[in-house]
Parts: sequence; structure tokens; C-alpha cells
Amino acid sequence: MNVQPSRSVRSPLSVVLLACFLCLSMSPMSVSADEGMYLFNDLPAKLLKDRHRFEITQDWADRLRLSSVRFNSGGSGSFISSNGLVLTNHHVAADTLQKLSTAERDLIRDGFLARTLEEELRAPDLELNQLVSIEDVTERVNAAVPAGADAETAFKLRRAAMSTIEQESKEATGLRSDVITLFGGAKYHLYRYRVFDDVRLVWAPETAAAFFGGDADNFEYPRFNLDATIMRVYEDGKPAQLEHYLRWSDAPLADGDLVFVSGNPGRTQRIYTAAALQYLRDDRLPFALDTLRRKEILMQQFSLGGGEQKRRGRDELFGIQNSRKAYSGMIAGLQTPSVMAEKRQREAELLETVRGRAELRDLAQAWDEVAAVQQEKRKLLKQTASPRCTLADIALQLVLLAGEDAKPNDQRLREFTDAGRESFLRELLSEAPIYKDLEQFKMTDELSRFAELRGGDDPFIVQLLDGKGPRQRGAELVLGTQLDDPKARQPLVDGGQAAIAASTDPMIVLARILEPEYRRIREQNEALEERERQAYASISKAITAVQGTGGYPDATFTLRLAFGTVKGYEQDGERIPPATTIGGAFAHAERHAGQEDFDLPASWLKAKAGTDLDTQINFVCTADIIGGNSGSPVVNRAGELVGLIFDGNIQSLTSDYLYTDTQGRAVSVSAVGIKEALRGIYQAPGLAGQLGK
Amino acid sequence: MNVQPSRSVRSPLSVVLLACFLCLSMSPMSVSADEGMYLFNDLPAKLLKDRHRFEITQDWADRLRLSSVRFNSGGSGSFISSNGLVLTNHHVAADTLQKLSTAERDLIRDGFLARTLEEELRAPDLELNQLVSIEDVTERVNAAVPAGADAETAFKLRRAAMSTIEQESKEATGLRSDVITLFGGAKYHLYRYRVFDDVRLVWAPETAAAFFGGDADNFEYPRFNLDATIMRVYEDGKPAQLEHYLRWSDAPLADGDLVFVSGNPGRTQRIYTAAALQYLRDDRLPFALDTLRRKEILMQQFSLGGGEQKRRGRDELFGIQNSRKAYSGMIAGLQTPSVMAEKRQREAELLETVRGRAELRDLAQAWDEVAAVQQEKRKLLKQTASPRCTLADIALQLVLLAGEDAKPNDQRLREFTDAGRESFLRELLSEAPIYKDLEQFKMTDELSRFAELRGGDDPFIVQLLDGKGPRQRGAELVLGTQLDDPKARQPLVDGGQAAIAASTDPMIVLARILEPEYRRIREQNEALEERERQAYASISKAITAVQGTGGYPDATFTLRLAFGTVKGYEQDGERIPPATTIGGAFAHAERHAGQEDFDLPASWLKAKAGTDLDTQINFVCTADIIGGNSGSPVVNRAGELVGLIFDGNIQSLTSDYLYTDTQGRAVSVSAVGIKEALRGIYQAPGLAGQLGK
Repeated sequence: MNVQPSRSVRSPLSVVLLACFLCLSMSPMSVSADEGMYLFNDLPAKLLKDRHRFEITQDWADRLRLSSVRFNSGGSGSFISSNGLVLTNHHVAADTLQKLSTAERDLIRDGFLARTLEEELRAPDLELNQLVSIEDVTERVNAAVPAGADAETAFKLRRAAMSTIEQESKEATGLRSDVITLFGGAKYHLYRYRVFDDVRLVWAPETAAAFFGGDADNFEYPRFNLDATIMRVYEDGKPAQLEHYLRWSDAPLADGDLVFVSGNPGRTQRIYTAAALQYLRDDRLPFALDTLRRKEILMQQFSLGGGEQKRRGRDELFGIQNSRKAYSGMIAGLQTPSVMAEKRQREAELLETVRGRAELRDLAQAWDEVAAVQQEKRKLLKQTASPRCTLADIALQLVLLAGEDAKPNDQRLREFTDAGRESFLRELLSEAPIYKDLEQFKMTDELSRFAELRGGDDPFIVQLLDGKGPRQRGAELVLGTQLDDPKARQPLVDGGQAAIAASTDPMIVLARILEPEYRRIREQNEALEERERQAYASISKAITAVQGTGGYPDATFTLRLAFGTVKGYEQDGERIPPATTIGGAFAHAERHAGQEDFDLPASWLKAKAGTDLDTQINFVCTADIIGGNSGSPVVNRAGELVGLIFDGNIQSLTSDYLYTDTQGRAVSVSAVGIKEALRGIYQAPGLAGQLGK
Repeated sequence: MNVQPSRSVRSPLSVVLLACFLCLSMSPMSVSADEGMYLFNDLPAKLLKDRHRFEITQDWADRLRLSSVRFNSGGSGSFISSNGLVLTNHHVAADTLQKLSTAERDLIRDGFLARTLEEELRAPDLELNQLVSIEDVTERVNAAVPAGADAETAFKLRRAAMSTIEQESKEATGLRSDVITLFGGAKYHLYRYRVFDDVRLVWAPETAAAFFGGDADNFEYPRFNLDATIMRVYEDGKPAQLEHYLRWSDAPLADGDLVFVSGNPGRTQRIYTAAALQYLRDDRLPFALDTLRRKEILMQQFSLGGGEQKRRGRDELFGIQNSRKAYSGMIAGLQTPSVMAEKRQREAELLETVRGRAELRDLAQAWDEVAAVQQEKRKLLKQTASPRCTLADIALQLVLLAGEDAKPNDQRLREFTDAGRESFLRELLSEAPIYKDLEQFKMTDELSRFAELRGGDDPFIVQLLDGKGPRQRGAELVLGTQLDDPKARQPLVDGGQAAIAASTDPMIVLARILEPEYRRIREQNEALEERERQAYASISKAITAVQGTGGYPDATFTLRLAFGTVKGYEQDGERIPPATTIGGAFAHAERHAGQEDFDLPASWLKAKAGTDLDTQINFVCTADIIGGNSGSPVVNRAGELVGLIFDGNIQSLTSDYLYTDTQGRAVSVSAVGIKEALRGIYQAPGLAGQLGK
């Protein structure tokens, strides 16, 4: 399961930000200001005490951890009542809202409110994970790899060890068990999760309120967004009774308040060397942006077909636009000469120290190894055999599954092991609607894109096109397949390699062509990743030796604790206050009259008189977050819910590789704002009364 | 002056089209059906007589030629009254409409009608060309190049000869004089033009009527678009009195009617070899599309800033979207395996014949030479030193001008010769508004794009960025320059190299960095073009020897005559009639209620009752057209105006490299529809009464 960069955290770089990079740390090991995404089993107790006079206790942290959930669709959330209520962002829930919508019921546009338990709508394939324990298994994983093993062997042995540990844990505890690679491979931890797979929709606002200001305001601040949705977890068909959940704070936040964020940041790259950042800047991000812009235009073109097409493609278009804006900001940061110059200078200084100490000297070659790996990655960058088309992806997963099932558990690709089977099948057999008109658009474009990437005469492309143009071939594949019906997938899951080999479904036939190429490319990529992992493990060692311990590992879409203070900032000579109000939303809409994305929904206009306009709606803080943190609870010293992370401002966009708090801020929905909106605007006093109870 | 692919002629490929490629000719030399863009001094008299029983006379053709005009901004038009009225497309006039618009007067959105001569608005920099004579100068150009000269030397000698011929002609006649390269360099003709540089706007409809259906309907058919605008040419401050202009036909067209198109097709590539098409398919078009999609998103982002930003960027956004849709269709055709297979087979057959005939054998190596040049072009493809930003372009032109002015006329780059100086300066010193907010957006993106193309550490990029990120550097350049004011450009034109060297304007400083790189890249490209030109001249010779003469050369944005019949076609099993009516537009709007691009303007809704809804508004014919033909008059056997070319349907999109009339059609506005709209909808009976008079 990949974490999609969710609508959060990054955006075009502000010019005035640049000077502040000079004071930034070079790696996650050495920490300044409120930087850091800490492990729940390695909390920054001393830092919190020294810096914020906060004495963190194990009990406080355990309660927060057990009240936090991970959305497997890519995001975070929290339990907010004893009877199973879950709070997350509207844009995290959007995937589910989209899947529950039909031509007649547009939940994304119109929102939703269940007045009774019976009215709550079950998500077709959503899985929430509650982290119940963490165990260090570094020694056991490392023991599986003999010294001097080459990258490919090391990777396979390590993968086998991790799969075995997961499988044993799953059998012993019944819990979802994932071995996580930390500090670029210096540590391995076993995470055990309680899984909630019956998740139902309780309340969602209209997109006009949740994504108020649209693409223009995305990653900007001040904001006025009700980017919130409430769901409920069920067990045995009844609302789950929860021991751990967050109490709701009814107090607005004030400048300087200390807050904590407990969520699942997706991926950071703070340990990256200058060579790795250069590859990002000159190769990977430009290529990713070309692809995103292509898909953005494609989805726009699909939407021109009419209202129903617009509805079908909307969530995907939003996601693409969000990533495009985030990556544009990220590349702007990397293209700023002073940023790279600073990175290179600090790296040179560190390397000088490392080379100067006999016991560290050998580690210096790790930097060269990373640089060498980037050269190899460059060559592989544009190779792909995974079409961005749901039906083709389902077909490929089915073909791979049959192949992997024929192998012993510890030799399988990571996502096909027994321990992860339940989660994997939940998604593969999902009842979520698949729209063939949209799929046809996407498949046609993927065939065309593949042909562009390799050239039309490449034998793989000739095989894929089967003598037809992309348009004709795309139509034939999508209109001919039965895989849009989960019932057609089940026998291919059950029937294994024989069923796959016998299938005449055109998408399965296509996937049989894709499979060997997919495996070849993946194997090459994984060998490179293993070389990088080993190199970064050495770099981690060198940094720890020079700068000491006490840091945090790069993000891995697992639970982390971040902290910071509620704090405004200066921008273009103007003082930006830390919080906004519901009344501010109305004023913002007036300032942008005539721009569709700034029209507040009818529910807001109608309820204006009966709503407390002074209620806080959004606020910023200095906590260190990234995509995947979307939906994370923000709590105060007492552990009470005060907010809900939903974005980062434009100045925080570099946080993938560099944290800054000069202007960089995490943006949250205020807990008090959610409660007031439920009461005053959405006429749901019953639901408002359950929050935190 | 480059021809921008205008809103015309190409679009996504229809699947059903593919079979028909088998009957297509391989090169412009061998002609089938109504294919062909003929020279006015080499008319297809026999073909017209045999095929359509039409006896073309010199007088008929001369009158049509002298009634036709070229829009130097990229398009075609015609004289339609004795007192200087000019008819063209709204989308050809859009460049002028945009330049004449302000925040308070949005001519693109709202349209325009001058009730008196005094109300007519003068275009700030528009130049129209009337072709008054053609002279064959092949021998003189060829005599300048000794046999065996290398490509670079040959190019320079040929350029010098052409510049000298132009200069002599200009001095002798006072007319604009251009030497045109035809048949890939097998022939050179001298075109003399009467120039009209005082052109005023008389009438334009709203974009909602002209571009009814928007991006969704672009390149589709049936259509219902009033893509027309009327201007007037002036001489000595008074409406020009014209001897030659087109009479207006008041009869609707019927299936099977023979029609002629007289316009300036921009560029075709029908002589291209398979290797050249492969380069287009795998390299050039994918790169162009990535760039177009990038600019499309950029302009969309700019438009999100508000209504005035939307207005400022609209014309440019339209142009980008149009090219993107056209190129997408073109690449889809090339990616269809049967298209390339057919091309390769016919090429192989021709080559076998050529190799089998002793007197032709040496010519066969021309195909290898073209293939070799494609390899070189691949390497140069992503090199650029011309930012797509008006202010940077002005600065670069000023710096180049100073350098070129210091050279003898015959050694200058083509666009800087004395013969073309007037046209060149008209554009360089144009009073058209330049919006710094838009320029800043574009400059920032260009700096970022350049950095992506070469990598952020490339010395040229380091120089361009001058230590700042693209955003900061873009702001500094655009906000600091004075070049948005033509008065700041004049002294740099007059002051020559000393003025350029002394300038501290940041854009001029930037252009001094760009200049050597620009010259280096251009020189390499021109050497490759010369090698291709020589090779295609040999290929032309071979084809003529094998297949005989009687053909037409690839398009060069010069006046050509095409012909065809008014003719419907089958599409997805449905019969598409050749013409639509004004009433059909209202029905089309109703079918797409709720989609903004399908809202007819208020003027139409109001006038519905008083308009003859049965009047023809658009029709299709089989004439061979391409971008640049936009605005071309369509005339009947009597030489009367019956229509106005504005688009090609999706099935004609391959016409860049392959003509087809199975479904491919040129789309026109009907002359009767324009007249009825002026009378009934735009309440301009006076203007309607002048048409053709």
C-alpha cells in the first residue's frame, strides 16, 4: 500500500523563506526548533522538558497512541468517542465518499449526515489500523543477512526474514503485523495493529466548505476550511466500544500554546545526500510533474463530457492537482541555488570529519554509493509496466497473486505475504464502483504514454498495442473485460495460476504481457533500493557518531509524535495571525465573489445568523508534518483534542527534505470550529454532543 | 514569423478512420481524391477539369488570389467589399481582440460592433499581406551554392542569395518580398506582397458564439460556431478602396457542391520519411505535448487569480489548449501501428524502384541522410535559449538586432534583413499591452523549465538564475525591466550595440546571457535543417522521376488553392449531414444545459424569435487544409464567397502528414449564416448590406 501524497503540507515556495535555510539541520539526526517526527517507543522526553517544560509520561503517550488510527487509504485519524466515532479530513475520507456516491447521490458535492445508526453508510473497502505494540526486531532481521552479501541476495534474505517475523506474529496474536525499516535500514521494528474493517460514514460537509478556495487556496494561509469528516468503526455489526479515545477541548487556542500531533507521516527524505536531492531536482520531480500534468489535463478533458463525468473523475482530479501543486513547490525549493549550496557545504563538512576519524573513515564511501545509485535510477526512471488504470491494475495484481501464491511465504513480494493477505484482498475484491468510460479514457492515455516513453517500435509496446492504435486498443480492453465486477475477480483469486493461464478476459491477457516486464523492472528497482538502504544505514551510523543520538527516523507512514506551538508569522511584511474564524470564511467568500471555488455552500449562507461567527475555524502551529499526517489529531498538554491537521502552508513545502519554522506551518481545523459547525450549520446537535464523550 | 497552429484542422483520431489509410498517397507528389494545396502559379487545371469538370482560368485565379490576404499573426482572410472590409475567423482576430481589450473593455468575452467608421478600433501591430506576384528564382539561388559545399556553408550562401534577391526586389518595387523554399528545397519562388498595416476592428461576436462548445467541441463535428470577425484595411487614414474583393453568395450550399479554398496553410510534412515520422512520434511530439500541458496548467493557475487574470490570459490559454488537442490527435495517428507500417512499406517499394534504376540510384542515400539527421535532432531537441515570455523575447530580439545590424544585409539571420525590417519592427515596437503579473508567472516557469531541461548545476542555468530561485529571479527580472513600454525599446533599436552593452535593464542583461547560447543552438539547428533540405530535394527528384509531376509542395504559410466538395460522412454508423443551422445551435445548447461552454450569449437568446433558424451556420467539405488556413475564404465555381474555414474535424487530424477524405473534413462557417447573424442577432443591417459589395 503506497501513501499518496495527500492534500497537505507543500506548495510553491515563498521567496522570503530562503534566508532561513541557513539555520537548518542537515539530517534528521540533529534536531533544531520543533523539528521531528518521533517514534512512540523513543519519545523526546528531555527535549520536551527543556524546551517546553512538558513532562511526557508513558501513560499520556500510550493513551494518545491508542486513540490514533491510520487510514490505509492514505491518511490519519483519531477515535473521538466511546461509541466508535472517528475524526479525519474530508479529503482523506474523499476516497470513500467517492466510492459511496452514485449519479443520484453525490456525497462529495453535497455532503452527508446520518441521523440514525441505520443511516450510516458502510465504506466498501476502508481499513483502519490502531497501533497496539512496537517491538525492536533489528537483530533478528540483520542476523538473516551474512556479512558481504551482495545487494540482491541481501534484499531477498532480509525480505524473507521480515515476512517470517510478520507471519509468526500474526499467527501468535491475530493482529496485523508489519516490520518497518527505520533510519534507512539501521533499525527494524515490528508494529502490531488492531484492524477495523467495518467503517461507516456519519457526517461529511460539502466540498465547497471542506475545500473552500479550491486549488487557488490549497497550501495557502490564512484558510477557512472545514476539512473534516466523521466516521464510525463497527465490530460485529455494532458500534465498537472503545476504551481509548480523545476528549474534546472546548477552549480556543492562543498564540504560544503547546500542541502535539499524532499521525502517520507518509515519507520524508531528510537523510538524503546532495546527490540524491540532485536526482530529485533534475530527474525524478520533473518526470513526475510531466506525468501529473498529463493526468490533470486528461481528467479535465474527461470532465468536459458533462456533469456525471465531472462527478466520477472529481476525487482523482483533486488528488492529481494537489500532488502537482506540492511537487511544483518542492522542485522550486530544490532549484534555489542557496538551498543546494548549503546542503552541499554541510555535507562536505561532515564528510571531512568522518574522513578525519579512523574508525569512521570507511563509512565515507556510503556517500559515493548513494551517488552511484542515483546514476542507475536515472536509467530506470521512465521504465514502467504498471498502467495507471484501475482495471489494468486489478488484472496485474491478479496475475502477480497467482504467481506469488505458488511460492513459499518468505520468498514472496512484500504485499503478497500471508500476514498482509486480508488487507490486500479487501482492496482487490472491493465493491467500489468502477466507471468504464473513465477507465477507457485512462487506459487509452496509458497506452499512448507507454508508447511515448519507449518509442512506438519497442517490442513490449508492439505487444501491448496488438496492432491497434491506443484509442482502439484502450476501448477493446476496457469494454471487453469483466473485471469491473468483483464476482469476476474471485474465481481468479481462487483458481491460481491455472485460472489465470486459462482466462481470456482481455485485461488478464494484457496483464500476462505486463507481468514479466513488471517483475524485471521491480527487481532492478529493489536491488537499487537495497544498495541505497545499506548506504543510508552507514550514513546514519556516521551522523550518530559525529552528532550524537536523540533524533528521529525519516517518515514511513507509521505512527509518529510531533509537537510545536501555535504561532503566527510574518509574510511579505504582514503579520499573519495564528487563527481564523467562521466569520472570516464569509468575508473571504465576499472578497472572491464570482469565483466558483469561493462560493460557500447554501447550508452556510442559511445558517449564518444562527452561528457564532467568532468561533475559531483554522489555526497554524510549528509541528513537523508531511503528507499522510492529513487527519491527524492535534492535542493539548492535557491530551484533549484541539484540532485536526489538514494542510501545510506554502512555506512548509520543503519539509520533505528540510524542516523550517521561520514561516513554515502546519494548518489545522479547530476542534471548536467543528463542534460549532455541527451545531449551528449542520443542525446536528446530537452528533456535536457525542464528541469526546 | 512562425505560424502558430491555429484552432483548426486536427484532433483525436477516430478508430474507424484507420482502414482508410491504406489508400493514401505517400507523398505530396502523387495525388489522390481532393488532396492538394496548389501553388497559384502551378494550378491543377487538368485535375479540376477531369475530376470536377471545372475549367479554371487565369483571370478567375488571379481575382481569387488578389481577394485573399494573409494575417501575419498566423492565419488567413479575404477582402469582402470595395471599401476595405476583411473577413477572418474570430480565433485569428483573437490576438488583436486581446490586445485591444482592457480590464474595462473585454472584447473577447463581449464582442464588438462599430456603428460608424470613427468607432472602428485600430489593431496595434497587425499586418495583412496581399500576394501580388510570384517569380521563380530557383536558378539564381542554386547558382550561389557551389556543388559539394558542406551543409553550413551551403546554408549561409543560400541565405545570402535569398536576402539579396529580397532586398533588390524590395528596393525595385517597394513591396514586401519573401523568397520561399518549396518542395523541400527543389524550388525557390519570390513572393511579392502589398502590405496593409492600418487594420481596424469592425465587428466581432462574443466568444460564447464564436467558440461555442469550447475545448470539448473543438475539432468535433457537427458544429454551430460563428467563428467570424470583420475588420477593415485603411490607407492614408481612410478605408482602402479595393479593386479586388469577393462577392457574397446568398445561396446555401448543397451536398456535392464544388468549392475552393484560398488561404495560407502553415506547415505540412507530407514528404517526411518514415524515419522523420518516427522522430515526430517518439521524440518531438511527446516533448512538445509535455511543454504544452505544462503551459496549459500554468495559464490555468494564473487565471485562478480572478476575473481580470482570466481575461489577460485567456487568448493564450485558448491557443495552448488548441495546440495540445491537435498534437494529441496527431500523435495518436502516428502511434497507430498500421499507419507507420503502411508508410514504411510504400517507402520500401519506392526505394526498391529507385535503387533499381541506375540514374536514380544515388538518390537513395537521401533517405539515410534524413534518418541520420533525426538522430542529431534528438540530441538538440531539449536545448533552448528562448524563454516563452514576451518581455524576455523582446529583450532577446533587441540584443540580436543590434548584433545583426552590424553585419552586411546578406549575412544576417533571415528575420533581420532589410527587406523584412518594417514587419519586424512593427511587432517589436508594438503598443500592445504587456501584463507584468502574467509575465512574472511565465518567466518564473521558464526559469524552472530551463533548469529542469539542463539540470540545476548547468553553468548556463547558474548564470541565468544568478544565485536566486526561479520565483525570486523571475520577479526581479519582470518587475525590474522597463521593456513593457515601447518607448524604452526604441532607443535600444536606435542605439545599436553600444546601447545594448550599456543597458542595465535586467531583461537586457539576461538577454546578453541568452544570446551566445541562442546563436549556438540556432546554428546547429539550421545546419541540420539544411542537411534535411538537401536530402528532401533529392527525395523530391526521385519521386518525380518515379511518379511523374503535377503535385504540390508541402505548406509554407503562403497562398495555396485547395478544392473539394461539400460532403457528409458516416461516423460510428451514423450519417453526419454536411451542414448545420442556426436553430441547431439552440438545440445543441439545450442538450448541454449546465455546461458553461455551451451557454449561448444573451444576444442570441434575445434574438431567437427574429432570426431565421433554418439558415445554414456551418458546413463541411473535402478540401485539403491545415493550421494557417483558419480564416480562408471558401468560394464557389463563380468565385463568390460561400464560407469561411475555421476548423478540421477529428478525422482530418493526420493531415499534417497524410490527407484522407473518407471522414476527414474541413469545417467552415457559412456565408449565409454570417449575414443572417449580422442582420438578426447583431442588429447590424448596415454592415450586412455591405458584404460583397
